[in-house]
Amino acid sequence: MTQFLSENFLLESEYSKRLFYDYASKMPIIDYHNHLPPQDIAANRKFDTITEAWLEGDHYKWRAMRAFGIDEAYITGAASDEEKFLKWAEVVPYTIRNPLFHWTHLELRRYFEIDDLLKPENAVSIYHRCNEVLSEPSHSCNGLLSQMKVEVVCTTDDPADSLADHEQINQTGQSIHAFPTFRPDKIYEIGSEDYKKYLDSLAQLVGFNINSLDDLLEAAQKRMDAFHTVGGRLSDHSFRQLYDVDYSINRSKKLFAEVLAGKKPTDEESQVFKMTVLVELSKMYHQRGWAQQFHLGAIRNNNDRMMQAIGRDTGFDSIGDFDQIKGLRRFLSTLDQSGQLARTIIYNLNPKDNESFATMLGNFNDGSVRGKMQFGSGWWFLDQLDGMEKQLNALSNMGLLSCFVGMLTDSRSFLSFPRHEYFRRLLCGMIGKEMDRGLIPADLSYVGEIVNNICYYNAREYFNFET
Amino acid sequence: MTQFLSENFLLESEYSKRLFYDYASKMPIIDYHNHLPPQDIAANRKFDTITEAWLEGDHYKWRAMRAFGIDEAYITGAASDEEKFLKWAEVVPYTIRNPLFHWTHLELRRYFEIDDLLKPENAVSIYHRCNEVLSEPSHSCNGLLSQMKVEVVCTTDDPADSLADHEQINQTGQSIHAFPTFRPDKIYEIGSEDYKKYLDSLAQLVGFNINSLDDLLEAAQKRMDAFHTVGGRLSDHSFRQLYDVDYSINRSKKLFAEVLAGKKPTDEESQVFKMTVLVELSKMYHQRGWAQQFHLGAIRNNNDRMMQAIGRDTGFDSIGDFDQIKGLRRFLSTLDQSGQLARTIIYNLNPKDNESFATMLGNFNDGSVRGKMQFGSGWWFLDQLDGMEKQLNALSNMGLLSCFVGMLTDSRSFLSFPRHEYFRRLLCGMIGKEMDRGLIPADLSYVGEIVNNICYYNAREYFNFET
Amino acid sequence: MTQFLSENFLLESEYSKRLFYDYASKMPIIDYHNHLPPQDIAANRKFDTITEAWLEGDHYKWRAMRAFGIDEAYITGAASDEEKFLKWAEVVPYTIRNPLFHWTHLELRRYFEIDDLLKPENAVSIYHRCNEVLSEPSHSCNGLLSQMKVEVVCTTDDPADSLADHEQINQTGQSIHAFPTFRPDKIYEIGSEDYKKYLDSLAQLVGFNINSLDDLLEAAQKRMDAFHTVGGRLSDHSFRQLYDVDYSINRSKKLFAEVLAGKKPTDEESQVFKMTVLVELSKMYHQRGWAQQFHLGAIRNNNDRMMQAIGRDTGFDSIGDFDQIKGLRRFLSTLDQSGQLARTIIYNLNPKDNESFATMLGNFNDGSVRGKMQFGSGWWFLDQLDGMEKQLNALSNMGLLSCFVGMLTDSRSFLSFPRHEYFRRLLCGMIGKEMDRGLIPADLSYVGEIVNNICYYNAREYFNFET
Repeated sequence: MTQFLSENFLLESEYSKRLFYDYASKMPIIDYHNHLPPQDIAANRKFDTITEAWLEGDHYKWRAMRAFGIDEAYITGAASDEEKFLKWAEVVPYTIRNPLFHWTHLELRRYFEIDDLLKPENAVSIYHRCNEVLSEPSHSCNGLLSQMKVEVVCTTDDPADSLADHEQINQTGQSIHAFPTFRPDKIYEIGSEDYKKYLDSLAQLVGFNINSLDDLLEAAQKRMDAFHTVGGRLSDHSFRQLYDVDYSINRSKKLFAEVLAGKKPTDEESQVFKMTVLVELSKMYHQRGWAQQFHLGAIRNNNDRMMQAIGRDTGFDSIGDFDQIKGLRRFLSTLDQSGQLARTIIYNLNPKDNESFATMLGNFNDGSVRGKMQFGSGWWFLDQLDGMEKQLNALSNMGLLSCFVGMLTDSRSFLSFPRHEYFRRLLCGMIGKEMDRGLIPADLSYVGEIVNNICYYNAREYFNFET
Repeated sequence: MTQFLSENFLLESEYSKRLFYDYASKMPIIDYHNHLPPQDIAANRKFDTITEAWLEGDHYKWRAMRAFGIDEAYITGAASDEEKFLKWAEVVPYTIRNPLFHWTHLELRRYFEIDDLLKPENAVSIYHRCNEVLSEPSHSCNGLLSQMKVEVVCTTDDPADSLADHEQINQTGQSIHAFPTFRPDKIYEIGSEDYKKYLDSLAQLVGFNINSLDDLLEAAQKRMDAFHTVGGRLSDHSFRQLYDVDYSINRSKKLFAEVLAGKKPTDEESQVFKMTVLVELSKMYHQRGWAQQFHLGAIRNNNDRMMQAIGRDTGFDSIGDFDQIKGLRRFLSTLDQSGQLARTIIYNLNPKDNESFATMLGNFNDGSVRGKMQFGSGWWFLDQLDGMEKQLNALSNMGLLSCFVGMLTDSRSFLSFPRHEYFRRLLCGMIGKEMDRGLIPADLSYVGEIVNNICYYNAREYFNFET
Repeated sequence: MTQFLSENFLLESEYSKRLFYDYASKMPIIDYHNHLPPQDIAANRKFDTITEAWLEGDHYKWRAMRAFGIDEAYITGAASDEEKFLKWAEVVPYTIRNPLFHWTHLELRRYFEIDDLLKPENAVSIYHRCNEVLSEPSHSCNGLLSQMKVEVVCTTDDPADSLADHEQINQTGQSIHAFPTFRPDKIYEIGSEDYKKYLDSLAQLVGFNINSLDDLLEAAQKRMDAFHTVGGRLSDHSFRQLYDVDYSINRSKKLFAEVLAGKKPTDEESQVFKMTVLVELSKMYHQRGWAQQFHLGAIRNNNDRMMQAIGRDTGFDSIGDFDQIKGLRRFLSTLDQSGQLARTIIYNLNPKDNESFATMLGNFNDGSVRGKMQFGSGWWFLDQLDGMEKQLNALSNMGLLSCFVGMLTDSRSFLSFPRHEYFRRLLCGMIGKEMDRGLIPADLSYVGEIVNNICYYNAREYFNFET
């Protein structure tokens, strides 16, 4: 019997405890992909209320509140911070078996030393206690990161971002490194209404007009260099799937000119353009020794009424059932053929595709880099015990777990870092149990080294940040 | 060590036992979806033999018999009731790990107080013992339901059914409520050979001719009102998938007229018609505060030879691999946009789609009803421990288990109600084990309340029957 | 606590141990599908080095080496046998949780009595020790098979093979039977560049020219008879999916003539031809009482650069995400309708399809043969604990585990036979645990008989070899 979230939770064998306490828990954190706002790090923001830190922008919680029958006024609406928190506290006891239940209480424990279960009866007092703690210097944005032994965070940034925040962070010489990640989604979003406006903002930053695809690619190069200068070593992309279309520079050049002249591209044209530009960007990543990330499988903005009312990224995205494999194969093989395939991490949102992804990636390991092709950790809806375990099992069975670059938060919140602990407990729990069962040798220093690699050293070696 | 199906089976922690004995097992049963023949309830039918009650129409057992190499004569053929039972008894020992093995022995225990394993050696004596018991008043159809504390059953009925049986059941004032469920499959089955005959039967019941789509929709309204009057609060639909087509009232009106004039619709036209009519019916459900159910993912009548020989619903259906998500998204968003999306329960037949279904449903919770969008319990081939567990896990991880309306039998048999016990044991087993592991707080009254809600109170609140 | 791979590994209940030691482990092996070279059996080949036996042609190991960052020179390149072995030994410690880790150490234990973990520190000495053992008569190809109580192996053979090796094996009167399996992939590979050359080799063997589809089918018949004569009772096919196209003898005849005259068929034409010929071959299997096997779901030769460099079957295949069900349904129903559906085993490579496959197969059990339609054991990437367990669960829940024909190696290596032990331990572990939990009756002789059937007797009855 283990008390709720007590010191040994998820560590159900003696080996698991040893692996966690003597190895995993001692490792610092490299959070190589998240959505933290760099300006908050640069400014070392303090939060006025726990609602700001917890409920502002957290669409996981919003979805749970809607499912529980809470009115939108208390979710994204005009209610006060305290009212919103109290409504959330009504829902919390009814989130058992959802990751929110563990996340919420782990965060209360780790950051606020509150061991109670959040519920309506204690919500007011917990609200005020949290707000008080958040006013302490130890609980500024950077304080929160330091507490968790975070060495590196990689934020997600548009090529048209000035990177001023990252520059400022670099200059302060603080212990936490915050590097930008190049996310070029808007560069190839040729069908978007704001496309020309976006090109203008990019043009302004690079100092020349963007009148052709060549100009666009040159602008991308220049921005990539700027990202590199402030420590960026990764890119990221939000394709629902990598389209299985014929890439064509010539068609894309022509299409780009036509779109500048006012034409609206068809879906098929957009896909050709996106994939063609992506391949060119990808070669540039390879040239710089970067890693490229793809978050595949989401179907977004499904609720048209709410899209109209409150816009995108508000909790109406879900898991799609797209055909993934043929497009992925074409993309990877094209780059591999010319020797320009960068280190690659693919994150998959639909667990049905875990095995096909894991094995397709294995086709492009070329012996040049240990763990070159990475099947990324359970993403978004799959970032919970069940989803992480499935990813770890698919990776283990179809590839080499020992070479895995491990966990990342992918979070917008400075309070999400106990998820690394959560992952590490799961990993040590799983491996320790198999040591008990005679499926893995019961040699703690040998297995502990592999655990440490997954928790920290593999990422350090793979990304090669300048720290 | 637990004896086979003994009192603690599936209850492997002390908390599991407490949750089951002190909570779940005390709850009555609301079986909100099944295929019981209402005439059997109205007539309080008695079965002459266990073969009648068990093997007549049970295509699960038929499939197992065919797999075991039993001749069709003993399955759907001319063999006597006793011969058929004896053949089934040959198969039973070889069904371990299939749900039939547990169902069979649970039913023998719960209804007949027979603890023996059924096998050829004892088959004759068990056959006669069961027949004897079935002749007692306690084992009439209503007796069987009463024994299991069944409060409500919802049968599945065609809009062209007269509902005379349900009226009669209502009038007897008996303790078991049997409500009809509106299953309009034939209303939009425009490509069927019997379509006009069906319209005639509907016309006769509503008292006006059906010469246009407007007439058809009005007839549907009238029948819906009749269902509502005798207590119906649900609809159900057997789409293999919700087609991703452009809905069009005008095209559908025109098509309806053409079909009445003798035209055979194309597949695409049929799909447009079905989805357009469905959307209109769905608005009517919403207006009445009903819940709508969709059983998605089946591929039916796959054995053409047997379809010819013995017709549909004889054990030749299986799990399809359709694209589900885009059509589901369109359907739900269309209704949500006009504020006419009814409470919705989606049952999924292919476990690969569990996660995409569970998350798509979450996009349409609007805060108006607790648990408005329901990811339904494991259906048909998935109605077994593994399938139910996967559904519970997907629901828990991607939504709120605590708001789940729980189990239903979906059965044609009056002997299937121990499946509620089976589900409740699984649920308490799963939750109790996680209390032991420190993943759920070890607070029995708090967790017990959630268990009771899932077993009973959520359904009572969600469907709001007049009982 | 169990020592690594010690005598009780995977046997975690007393019942599991009894089932394994008193039943499963005593059964001989019928390895009814593998890729052993018949000439090695005929010649009773000896291996000069463990590298020859282990690393020559084992693309599982090659993929792991590439993932670990090993240069291709040490994989398929020019490095010496010892160098290759030493490189592999570097990787082994980092393959934990991958089946290679268990396979490697089981093989070292069972064939070489080496209990140590292979690692760089002991690699040289293990290399020499293995080579020494391999020089003993007990470790020739046939010695290796005998040690494992192998009664039957079924190799995989082209219709244009002369079968001289199988004839020779038959004549020696040795205890191990090696039967050929008819794998006609090249017969219908009408789009291949070598197609005419292949027809010539077939023509030479049957003694008449192949100028029409009728000739081709007659040649196939004659070769099938030759296979039958030397004991062949199975066929096998490597379709990625059974195409859902209209079969047409007339179109196929015409196409065949056109291709002989130099035409290049379209993809759609090739598919029609393949499926049409397959249906004709399938009728011939039925006529002879053979079983037909289909290995579905692979996507092959994904790395174009390596395909160019070192050719096919070198470790660049993976799991596809094809639509499987409609084509499978059409194929099976077509044959069933004319009463010509042979015993069928379908192996599935993408676990997302396990349930749809298992249930589709159940539609075609016709009561004529116990277990006629078989959902085959976890294949290729799924041939590991997790994959085998998923297959066993899908089969159990959707069909009859008791009728399963069980394990096969599908291997190119004479050292792969401990995989039968691995499967049997998993099976006994799973069943024994459920006896403990009260889900299966704790009657060892009853359950033990079922275990023996799955391990041996079902296959013996199903294939009906002349032994």
